[in-house]
Amino acid sequence: MIIVLKTNATPEQINHICDKVKELGLTPQVSKGVERTIIGVIGEEDKLRVKPLSTFPGVDSVVQIQRPFKLASREFKPEPTIFDMGNGVKVGGKKIVVMAGPCSVENLDMLVRIAKRVKAAGATFLRGGAFKPRTSPYSFQGLGEEGLKYLREAADQTGLLVVTEVMDPRQVELVSRYTDMLQIGARNMQNFDLLKEVGATKKPTLLKRGLSSTIKELLLSAEYLLSKGNFKVMLCERGIRTFETATRNTIDINAVPVVKNETHLPVLIDPSHGTGKWAYVGSIAKAAVAAGADGLMMEVHDNPEEAKSDGDQSLLPERFDQLMKELKPIAQAVGREI
Amino acid sequence: MIIVLKTNATPEQINHICDKVKELGLTPQVSKGVERTIIGVIGEEDKLRVKPLSTFPGVDSVVQIQRPFKLASREFKPEPTIFDMGNGVKVGGKKIVVMAGPCSVENLDMLVRIAKRVKAAGATFLRGGAFKPRTSPYSFQGLGEEGLKYLREAADQTGLLVVTEVMDPRQVELVSRYTDMLQIGARNMQNFDLLKEVGATKKPTLLKRGLSSTIKELLLSAEYLLSKGNFKVMLCERGIRTFETATRNTIDINAVPVVKNETHLPVLIDPSHGTGKWAYVGSIAKAAVAAGADGLMMEVHDNPEEAKSDGDQSLLPERFDQLMKELKPIAQAVGREI
Amino acid sequence: MIIVLKTNATPEQINHICDKVKELGLTPQVSKGVERTIIGVIGEEDKLRVKPLSTFPGVDSVVQIQRPFKLASREFKPEPTIFDMGNGVKVGGKKIVVMAGPCSVENLDMLVRIAKRVKAAGATFLRGGAFKPRTSPYSFQGLGEEGLKYLREAADQTGLLVVTEVMDPRQVELVSRYTDMLQIGARNMQNFDLLKEVGATKKPTLLKRGLSSTIKELLLSAEYLLSKGNFKVMLCERGIRTFETATRNTIDINAVPVVKNETHLPVLIDPSHGTGKWAYVGSIAKAAVAAGADGLMMEVHDNPEEAKSDGDQSLLPERFDQLMKELKPIAQAVGREI
Amino acid sequence: MIIVLKTNATPEQINHICDKVKELGLTPQVSKGVERTIIGVIGEEDKLRVKPLSTFPGVDSVVQIQRPFKLASREFKPEPTIFDMGNGVKVGGKKIVVMAGPCSVENLDMLVRIAKRVKAAGATFLRGGAFKPRTSPYSFQGLGEEGLKYLREAADQTGLLVVTEVMDPRQVELVSRYTDMLQIGARNMQNFDLLKEVGATKKPTLLKRGLSSTIKELLLSAEYLLSKGNFKVMLCERGIRTFETATRNTIDINAVPVVKNETHLPVLIDPSHGTGKWAYVGSIAKAAVAAGADGLMMEVHDNPEEAKSDGDQSLLPERFDQLMKELKPIAQAVGREI
Repeated sequence: MIIVLKTNATPEQINHICDKVKELGLTPQVSKGVERTIIGVIGEEDKLRVKPLSTFPGVDSVVQIQRPFKLASREFKPEPTIFDMGNGVKVGGKKIVVMAGPCSVENLDMLVRIAKRVKAAGATFLRGGAFKPRTSPYSFQGLGEEGLKYLREAADQTGLLVVTEVMDPRQVELVSRYTDMLQIGARNMQNFDLLKEVGATKKPTLLKRGLSSTIKELLLSAEYLLSKGNFKVMLCERGIRTFETATRNTIDINAVPVVKNETHLPVLIDPSHGTGKWAYVGSIAKAAVAAGADGLMMEVHDNPEEAKSDGDQSLLPERFDQLMKELKPIAQAVGREI
Repeated sequence: MIIVLKTNATPEQINHICDKVKELGLTPQVSKGVERTIIGVIGEEDKLRVKPLSTFPGVDSVVQIQRPFKLASREFKPEPTIFDMGNGVKVGGKKIVVMAGPCSVENLDMLVRIAKRVKAAGATFLRGGAFKPRTSPYSFQGLGEEGLKYLREAADQTGLLVVTEVMDPRQVELVSRYTDMLQIGARNMQNFDLLKEVGATKKPTLLKRGLSSTIKELLLSAEYLLSKGNFKVMLCERGIRTFETATRNTIDINAVPVVKNETHLPVLIDPSHGTGKWAYVGSIAKAAVAAGADGLMMEVHDNPEEAKSDGDQSLLPERFDQLMKELKPIAQAVGREI
Repeated sequence: MIIVLKTNATPEQINHICDKVKELGLTPQVSKGVERTIIGVIGEEDKLRVKPLSTFPGVDSVVQIQRPFKLASREFKPEPTIFDMGNGVKVGGKKIVVMAGPCSVENLDMLVRIAKRVKAAGATFLRGGAFKPRTSPYSFQGLGEEGLKYLREAADQTGLLVVTEVMDPRQVELVSRYTDMLQIGARNMQNFDLLKEVGATKKPTLLKRGLSSTIKELLLSAEYLLSKGNFKVMLCERGIRTFETATRNTIDINAVPVVKNETHLPVLIDPSHGTGKWAYVGSIAKAAVAAGADGLMMEVHDNPEEAKSDGDQSLLPERFDQLMKELKPIAQAVGREI
Repeated sequence: MIIVLKTNATPEQINHICDKVKELGLTPQVSKGVERTIIGVIGEEDKLRVKPLSTFPGVDSVVQIQRPFKLASREFKPEPTIFDMGNGVKVGGKKIVVMAGPCSVENLDMLVRIAKRVKAAGATFLRGGAFKPRTSPYSFQGLGEEGLKYLREAADQTGLLVVTEVMDPRQVELVSRYTDMLQIGARNMQNFDLLKEVGATKKPTLLKRGLSSTIKELLLSAEYLLSKGNFKVMLCERGIRTFETATRNTIDINAVPVVKNETHLPVLIDPSHGTGKWAYVGSIAKAAVAAGADGLMMEVHDNPEEAKSDGDQSLLPERFDQLMKELKPIAQAVGREI
């Protein structure tokens, strides 16, 4: 940590700060420049973070040097995390995992029908919401446990794995019973009680980036999971909120190389939420694979006109099929499989 | 709702859409323009919202006309909401409510000491966090129920009301027991299970705007509370996330007149979180009162150097005292009291 | 255009608006809904845009239906624009154009050296700034005309085309003399006098998207060029400004399919400015090609430690060479060449 | 400047960096921490800014300590800048300056009519655009020199000063002839050639903040003016671009205390562009005065239904009149006059 002093900081103020630093078992290193003095702090930066240093008299600003996340960092674990889902599917490995299915679980029939189509096209996970976070209280809120049962049933019939969202710490046990991977949605990325509860299950978890969360904050939320002993965590970029309104969100494709650089955790892209329009999904799915993503999550529906949610961004099964074929040579070009 | 068609939409496509509209008991009104045709839909717009209309062949875009929130709207209730806190304090009335106190509850002594100071200066609510949403799992997470007890005790000793955050639907009952007003934090504005649980208590609630939430979304989250029969809701603008890094967040002062125009609910400004620096709090508090806010929430700490969180943005009691004096003539200038 | 009225709009107010609409030679179509009335306007929407309709008594809001850009739209020209640069290079065709070179022109030697390397690797344009837009007046401002001469010389020696920025309407004639394609930088995307001057030259032009400009605004700025009779326009996505600070800007990869859908003009991605770090350039260049971009612009420098600007985001020639090889199979996978 | 090294930086890499630092006449100070080493650089930071330090092997990141602007800083000039406009009007003094008038100059009659009204209500400057920056090439572009003549005429008849925008470096001389204060619009805040040309005139200048410019960048653009010897510069906050669409822009009210803290230059707020709706202008004007702004710029039109631009955000003269009365006690409450 670097403490930058005001140009007019007095020796008393500097001593006062150094005393506090020493009190915490850290070493201050004062460096007098031409225009101003700075104090470098040597030792465990976390000890100082609890102190609001910028309130000390004479301080202009404080600069963090160390990354605030630890277990999620490349420095803690240099090699990429690969985890096994049990049935031979590996997350983070050479093969890019594909999660596909409807936005919401609507009934068993449609789910089985779509599951068969996405399985045939090469998906390994069935996605679908049983508990739905909806902006309006008047929108369809999901089928609840019934939806979970349908997901399990459709996945078992087709040999897919289930990934589904859990929104409430009270439902973690229930959802865990039916799913192979727990999903934490964008709106809950900083729902810290939920993170703690999910971390404690040690189940594979897909953590979605919040609409206005930085990558650093995403990694800090991952740290909540990892610090509970759960290292089977996959991150998801699903678009951030910007001023642009031509698309539902703005996919931050830069997140792929940044995440690869900062953490060992695998990263997946969700082009359906990231664009909000099915016509743009293919282009972004290709970009994600080329950029180095470890997975894709896409909404597929065979009757979008009647979909209970997000019909606008759902691919028809035949378009999903075609896209999966088009993704293969791109995956190959970057040394991957799909 | 207006359905704008593509320039090359066919009569069959137009009929197909009109049929769907009629199926739902609504009336389509086709209007052929020079360049393109549009379909106006007459009736309850909500019925159509469940349909992903833009997936219909021939559709270019869909425009909502009606506001998606109802109970929160000025059209539902034209006169401003004023609610009584029991001890004579009214929220939304002529007198601007002031909530002050430390960011986190640290111990009883400090809390009582600060409570006395803010009460003397004119505050009516004691604020303080017992459960703290922290970006990092390694930061101080709050004292929990012990903190709630201290809040109640300090408030009772000084004749203040308590406002404190609840983060987890499982804690709603517990927190309700100790507090006069429940606070839903910015990170939980779209934690819909929490909103439902809090709405059901019918307790006065302070709903903070999410870091990247639009005002429309804030009102939809309020709608979750109102639709549970809880109309004692105060909204809080606490800064949004933008590209500017000179301040912790960007206070959206425009939110004051917009909220006043769109809803009957009272609105409060939090200049402490909105700026992140105590030196800017006074200027923004004055702006908030001048703009027409119904309340202010400010962090006050008598030893910011040792504060467990947010020391940088906490006012010293003597500065808070001075600020309260400076706010009086501004409140008066806009026909209010403080 | 749709005029949405307030729920309490009077018949007099409605008549007043309809009269204005008719005065302009347009046809109002009144549609009374259950909750409110709307007026559809039939005819050339532009005529109404000059009127601030929302100031009329009784108006709640106004919704535009037609796109404000015309010549740039797909409706005006459905087939993609391909233009010839004279020496066999086509912009917008099957072959993806690659523009590479240093951020700033520093001297002739370095420029020739780098030009040879990028030409050998497959680039068709030499990029380099002679006039530099710099945030600080104390930063290197470019070599001016001398830099233009070096660009021409290095390009002619190597058989490359020159693309370089023009910042000032007074320099358009000068810069045109030395360059094959004029570049309008992000900061000047809405410098309308510059756009008019550049449009009048009819020279091929690369128009960069502003840091906080929507795609619609980018197309309106393109419209300034097209309306002067210059259709040789290529658009450039170079990253937008968001709250994320891990990268210099956020590449809006969604812009590729959106631009392809809205306009016939070709689109290029600049991963150097879009990320600000050379280590991320390769990943984003691959994403751009996979997403369907028609071109790439990348900064290459053989001694980034001594670069006068943007060394952080410049690739070494050997890395550029390697990247060009890696891009080939991706281009092929999407039916293109590079 | 602080150079943060990677955890695995080698002694050779450290020496290489130190050598470069010394070459520039600066002093490196190496500080070895528990986890990583940092190098503090003592001396004129500008010398190092030309080097892309993060490209040096072993470097993790680089942190600037000194502010990049100098002449605009409080450290260079601690006391606030107040400048005289010649006719007794002082900018930056106790009296808040008010600039009012139509968005565009439309004809002499309307301008004189409006000028008389705003003068009577207490404005000191007449605003109005003769050269208009318009997003679309098909919108009204202003009357040009004719408009300038009308401005001068209307101002002279009423005893007001003229402030008007200059968009093109070629028009600086022309516009200067007719105006008392030159305005640089938001879209041109980083039009560096225009800044240089305007700085050279030494005329009082109003510099508007760009839609997506940080306050630091605004001050760097001001530095372009100041470094030409022109210190009569007033800054203008007119709203930034965010995700919120309820208002045209988001007024960054935080900018007032931040600018006051960072620079000696006076700052003005433009609530008309900052909100885009006349109904919100009064609330924001009051907030601006309470926050400590040195000026207000507001659009006034006596027939907004027929305004050629921005009618939606223009106040009627009677509303402006009323607002000026309401602002007086607020100005007084913060020790100012209006």
